[in-house]
Amino acid sequence: MERLLKKCQIRNQLIRECMAECLGVYVLILFGCGSVAQVVTTEDKKGQYLSINLGFALGVTFGVFVSRGVSGAHLNPAVSLSLCVLGRHSWVKLPFYIFFQVLGAFLAAATVALQYYDAIQAYSGGDLTVTGPTATAGIFSTYPADYLSVWGGIVDQVIGTAALLLCVLALGDHRNSSIPHYLQPVLVGAAVLVIGISMGSNSGYALNPARDFGPRLFTYIAGWGADVFKAGSSWWWVPIVAPCVGALLGTLIYELMVEVHHPSEFPSPSSPCA
Amino acid sequence: MERLLKKCQIRNQLIRECMAECLGVYVLILFGCGSVAQVVTTEDKKGQYLSINLGFALGVTFGVFVSRGVSGAHLNPAVSLSLCVLGRHSWVKLPFYIFFQVLGAFLAAATVALQYYDAIQAYSGGDLTVTGPTATAGIFSTYPADYLSVWGGIVDQVIGTAALLLCVLALGDHRNSSIPHYLQPVLVGAAVLVIGISMGSNSGYALNPARDFGPRLFTYIAGWGADVFKAGSSWWWVPIVAPCVGALLGTLIYELMVEVHHPSEFPSPSSPCA
Amino acid sequence: MERLLKKCQIRNQLIRECMAECLGVYVLILFGCGSVAQVVTTEDKKGQYLSINLGFALGVTFGVFVSRGVSGAHLNPAVSLSLCVLGRHSWVKLPFYIFFQVLGAFLAAATVALQYYDAIQAYSGGDLTVTGPTATAGIFSTYPADYLSVWGGIVDQVIGTAALLLCVLALGDHRNSSIPHYLQPVLVGAAVLVIGISMGSNSGYALNPARDFGPRLFTYIAGWGADVFKAGSSWWWVPIVAPCVGALLGTLIYELMVEVHHPSEFPSPSSPCA
Amino acid sequence: MERLLKKCQIRNQLIRECMAECLGVYVLILFGCGSVAQVVTTEDKKGQYLSINLGFALGVTFGVFVSRGVSGAHLNPAVSLSLCVLGRHSWVKLPFYIFFQVLGAFLAAATVALQYYDAIQAYSGGDLTVTGPTATAGIFSTYPADYLSVWGGIVDQVIGTAALLLCVLALGDHRNSSIPHYLQPVLVGAAVLVIGISMGSNSGYALNPARDFGPRLFTYIAGWGADVFKAGSSWWWVPIVAPCVGALLGTLIYELMVEVHHPSEFPSPSSPCA
Repeated sequence: MERLLKKCQIRNQLIRECMAECLGVYVLILFGCGSVAQVVTTEDKKGQYLSINLGFALGVTFGVFVSRGVSGAHLNPAVSLSLCVLGRHSWVKLPFYIFFQVLGAFLAAATVALQYYDAIQAYSGGDLTVTGPTATAGIFSTYPADYLSVWGGIVDQVIGTAALLLCVLALGDHRNSSIPHYLQPVLVGAAVLVIGISMGSNSGYALNPARDFGPRLFTYIAGWGADVFKAGSSWWWVPIVAPCVGALLGTLIYELMVEVHHPSEFPSPSSPCA
Repeated sequence: MERLLKKCQIRNQLIRECMAECLGVYVLILFGCGSVAQVVTTEDKKGQYLSINLGFALGVTFGVFVSRGVSGAHLNPAVSLSLCVLGRHSWVKLPFYIFFQVLGAFLAAATVALQYYDAIQAYSGGDLTVTGPTATAGIFSTYPADYLSVWGGIVDQVIGTAALLLCVLALGDHRNSSIPHYLQPVLVGAAVLVIGISMGSNSGYALNPARDFGPRLFTYIAGWGADVFKAGSSWWWVPIVAPCVGALLGTLIYELMVEVHHPSEFPSPSSPCA
Repeated sequence: MERLLKKCQIRNQLIRECMAECLGVYVLILFGCGSVAQVVTTEDKKGQYLSINLGFALGVTFGVFVSRGVSGAHLNPAVSLSLCVLGRHSWVKLPFYIFFQVLGAFLAAATVALQYYDAIQAYSGGDLTVTGPTATAGIFSTYPADYLSVWGGIVDQVIGTAALLLCVLALGDHRNSSIPHYLQPVLVGAAVLVIGISMGSNSGYALNPARDFGPRLFTYIAGWGADVFKAGSSWWWVPIVAPCVGALLGTLIYELMVEVHHPSEFPSPSSPCA
Repeated sequence: MERLLKKCQIRNQLIRECMAECLGVYVLILFGCGSVAQVVTTEDKKGQYLSINLGFALGVTFGVFVSRGVSGAHLNPAVSLSLCVLGRHSWVKLPFYIFFQVLGAFLAAATVALQYYDAIQAYSGGDLTVTGPTATAGIFSTYPADYLSVWGGIVDQVIGTAALLLCVLALGDHRNSSIPHYLQPVLVGAAVLVIGISMGSNSGYALNPARDFGPRLFTYIAGWGADVFKAGSSWWWVPIVAPCVGALLGTLIYELMVEVHHPSEFPSPSSPCA
């Protein structure tokens, strides 16, 4: 068996990294959207909002554990972009990373839909809707609260992703708090947990273009239709654009407030996680 | 006292491992099914679904702590099977491991029934039923939701156990994220927590033939009768067969997507946990 | 200031250990009973049963952190007794440890009563009762559920404390899972958490004679009167006697199932925590 | 980019420390008050009291991670004061630390108000009130429960802050439990969690003059008006004064009960965290 598997070995570094990113995001969305599916289809009987927060947090933790040693576990196009801007990741690899991140999210959404097929049918009466009392599109992608303006949504996503990057960069800054690499997946998960607890209610804390767009594409194809792009005054582009802006803002704040001022005797070790 | 205990020392490695597996599964089920008993008999007043998720998660954590140094803490026939297929565990020991895993689960179910005897009597009015408003068989074994088809249940258990193995193998893969051995029980518990949060509502996330069959056998004998095998269109065989399929699938995915592609300069350290 | 404090230095080892045990139990009860007070006086609005479980769990964690380096952090007469029987603690010190453990619990109960004075007055209308709709004695000590027989309560406390010792001994057994000393307070807290989640509803999981008797004595003196000893068919002696029996049983099970069978090449390091 | 950032490097140690304290408190309040805003504006649908407890706890954890390597992560004037009294921090730096701690809290409150602008408008109907059914001032600062007397509030804050310092000093005492520096932010967060669970209902566990006064100032300016200083019988000064008294009391208790009695062969390592 072990010998059989050895034959499948791929030595190309980029392919390995892309597969790891894909699997990492797959795990993140499988647990994250799965926890939403459980809460929605049981009508809060087997989970509440806190369990969704925990689902995404631990989804990130295990997504990072699955991929970190191979690809560095970005799991998020906005994170990949920030690392490119900081000069810590190659611009050439960026489109490959993004494509496989979105692919992983798409496949995970399909898996959740398969696992919850009977449950979604029973809950929605077989009618797959984006809005209304038995809407189920929210299991897969984020939609804004009724009261939220588009600008409010943009501000919400920018602040949320900036907070994420601030935490992630602090955790990865060896000259501030040098954390063992094996604890970083857990602490990045904790950052996602607290963001979900404190910034989740406005628009569902996507913070990640792949997390939102992959599953949205799946729902578009799988029967929810064009409404997934129209709902919330065409909300779909906000969780793609705003997290990128937010990630850059958070990076800038951490760099300007803390990292650049470290005394420079040590060479920059710069291996941020997630 | 210490000297007296020394006299009872058993040197046979297989017997030691079987006792450790038995005690490990005992702890897992004692805490896991105990948390269900608390939620059911207090009608959600002293616990909710999240506390059941935590009960099984921490049950796994302490089950692994209790047995890991002796037997490697499989605690699950599907895990033992996967490790045999991967060539990391002896096929000869497999039946012994399985027998003692089921035995541990059976004894733990008996202990929970003893500890909650008065509570179950008060809650059920002394009538031990498998279905209906005061059913108590669900304290011990899993039963599918009303809407779930048999195929839906199989898919659910296959995906759930595949996700478990994916996490467990990633945690044990020293060339991906080399985690200190003393953190692995905690992180395997976290994997069980997130699976319970995101894949628990369809059929109660057995994921483990011993966890489900041992307590089911106990309820069959202890007064719930043949219904425990008939309920849910004879559901009982699904959490035995599907987890084995799922464990092999999860193993295959992790091996093909990550592990076999590691550069081979280091010898495979392969000591997966739980 | 530092110099002023230095003058107060006590060199007697036994006095230092007794002060540490006293402060450790004080912290445990301050957080544990405080969390019950918060849930009871806000009628579940600012906490639920899970927050009580977390209160006692983290109370144990910080109680251990506060005292571990000085006294070994038993914080529980039943644990001290088991360690004496195993020959890992001096019988001569036992009565001193027990006295200061009970004293710490008594003082902490008084502190909780002081901090929640206004809240208890507002909730109970100034009438301090042990039973009835606005009973508040349960903030401090454990009382059995209505359905529980005395034998059921004894069995409950024996099983609960045996489970606690099983976990504590496994965590402290360096030849099974050698856990860094700084993680043991957290993991012992996790053991208390899972016991509260899975064995809490019958009689409030005292598991500890000092935790129950110290606060009960306080309520007796502070205005709840003789009812605290009469309620629940004179329940008060059960959480004193049964935990001692359970602790010895749990110790025996772990020793006979795991510890005595370790290959003896290494000398027994035996420094169990908690 | 990296080179551009280098140009902004500040070498002055005090400025770096003040920026770190400011950013640390900012993170703490951003997550802490954000979690209150989420619970209040969704009327407990996307969070409960426990999620507020988690929000402040993880807020402290990440606030410490962000600033610890630079300023020692006091994040609290009462902690800074205690360290000065113990001779572990410079009195000269104290006013700078306090000013930037309050500034960080003020800016974070403004950020929360911006992120939840639409939500607060929708919830309150645009009427920013301190008391009444749709009061929103409690998102930012603490107010006492109706039943609480001023003396009760002072006692509550003194006990709470004393408990905090007791835990923080025990975690930082290398001769008691020598905890790796990278775990201290997590454990200080756990201390804040358990204090919120067991001492939160009387007056909202400010425990920190900066945490309370900075956001209160913001609400005063931003439209809630002078009521924020008048409400609760002019409650505002209690969470400024009482935490300082409590911090000194907790310091004294830990020093007198544990730390001064350590055998003095080792030089005092004294690097308490948070």
